[in-house]
Amino acid sequence: MSGHVGLAAWHAYMAECGDPQALKDLLATDAVFHSPVVHTPQAGRDKVFAYLHAASHVLGGDDFRYLREIVDGDQAMLEFQTELDGIQINGVDIIIWNDEGKISDFKVMVRPLKAINKVWEKMGEMLAAQAS
Amino acid sequence: MSGHVGLAAWHAYMAECGDPQALKDLLATDAVFHSPVVHTPQAGRDKVFAYLHAASHVLGGDDFRYLREIVDGDQAMLEFQTELDGIQINGVDIIIWNDEGKISDFKVMVRPLKAINKVWEKMGEMLAAQAS
Repeated sequence: MSGHVGLAAWHAYMAECGDPQALKDLLATDAVFHSPVVHTPQAGRDKVFAYLHAASHVLGGDDFRYLREIVDGDQAMLEFQTELDGIQINGVDIIIWNDEGKISDFKVMVRPLKAINKVWEKMGEMLAAQAS
Repeated sequence: MSGHVGLAAWHAYMAECGDPQALKDLLATDAVFHSPVVHTPQAGRDKVFAYLHAASHVLGGDDFRYLREIVDGDQAMLEFQTELDGIQINGVDIIIWNDEGKISDFKVMVRPLKAINKVWEKMGEMLAAQAS
């Protein structure tokens, strides 16, 4: 059941247009993020927060919408679609929640090739801006 | 329930090392394939077969294994991992089955960026070889 509680909390965060504190509250301290671009996982709440916060600004514009969900216990796959600079972006958020309903693992994949190149460009700009 | 029947049939096909006729029998006549590389969907059993048959040769080597499944009614997400030319490939098959337990929709996404570039290169070679 915690998966569904976590999923509802995730949708509430998305509906609130990405409030940073709300996002932080959703994450387990030992959460891990798997980027669509880079192989190496990013471990720890602060790193996961930085990536998801950047992603919500890069991807979460007016065109962003979820298309479908596949939910199975404490795991879910959420498929999304958006558009960046005229490029169609189709992707999935694959989320695992822990026993407390906090996000313990968050993996993103994106298609097609043009889209992953565009996400790479935009995420790089956003993460560089956060770091400066 | 047809989703689970279809999923079992898919795993049986994979365990049989990709018999072409077995693959064709799994597909609905109006099946659609969504490539990790190209935006435009490929519609019709023959096209879906060509892509999945090529993919089974490109990706389905000794290193290929499924990592986890998220199953929800007639839909499932199967996460896989393999290695191509020393590049780690992490991806998902997102499958929808119709009421007869045949695959009606098959979408593939791959991460990270290096992996999608490698899949693009290898799938291009394989599809060109099939066409010639």
